[in-house]
Amino acid sequence: MLKATIIVRYKQGVDDPEGKSIKHSLELLNFKDIQEVRVAKYYEIYLDKPLEEGKREVEEMIRKLLVNPVIHDYEMRVEEL
Amino acid sequence: MLKATIIVRYKQGVDDPEGKSIKHSLELLNFKDIQEVRVAKYYEIYLDKPLEEGKREVEEMIRKLLVNPVIHDYEMRVEEL
Repeated sequence: MLKATIIVRYKQGVDDPEGKSIKHSLELLNFKDIQEVRVAKYYEIYLDKPLEEGKREVEEMIRKLLVNPVIHDYEMRVEEL
Repeated sequence: MLKATIIVRYKQGVDDPEGKSIKHSLELLNFKDIQEVRVAKYYEIYLDKPLEEGKREVEEMIRKLLVNPVIHDYEMRVEEL
């Protein structure tokens, strides 16, 4: 069994409306000195594949569904459980 | 400057509709052997505070806004930049 962890962030310079909204809400709750809030997606995918084949497959999932390379950067980690 | 990273997951046993929907979409794209997909929120908060005070403040943000303890587990990490 493999576990793939994928973090999908907005690229620097791309607007992050959810992050801005959370920053604003925190300020309304009286938290000061917040410079920035960024929100990312964090996917955990469990799959039954050998390691090398699984890595290739997860890269394909990223390309086909999870990441839009125009606006996103991502990190990927695949480990055997 | 501090950087806090917070991962907010659904607790085991709590339904994750977004994870299920992504699993379904991946299967429609012909990816087989997926056991499960879980989706979490990943927050990066930058703030101007000393380390210990910043940690306390981030714990308060978690309690007041970011996490619902009935349905969520979370991990938190605070580091100096």
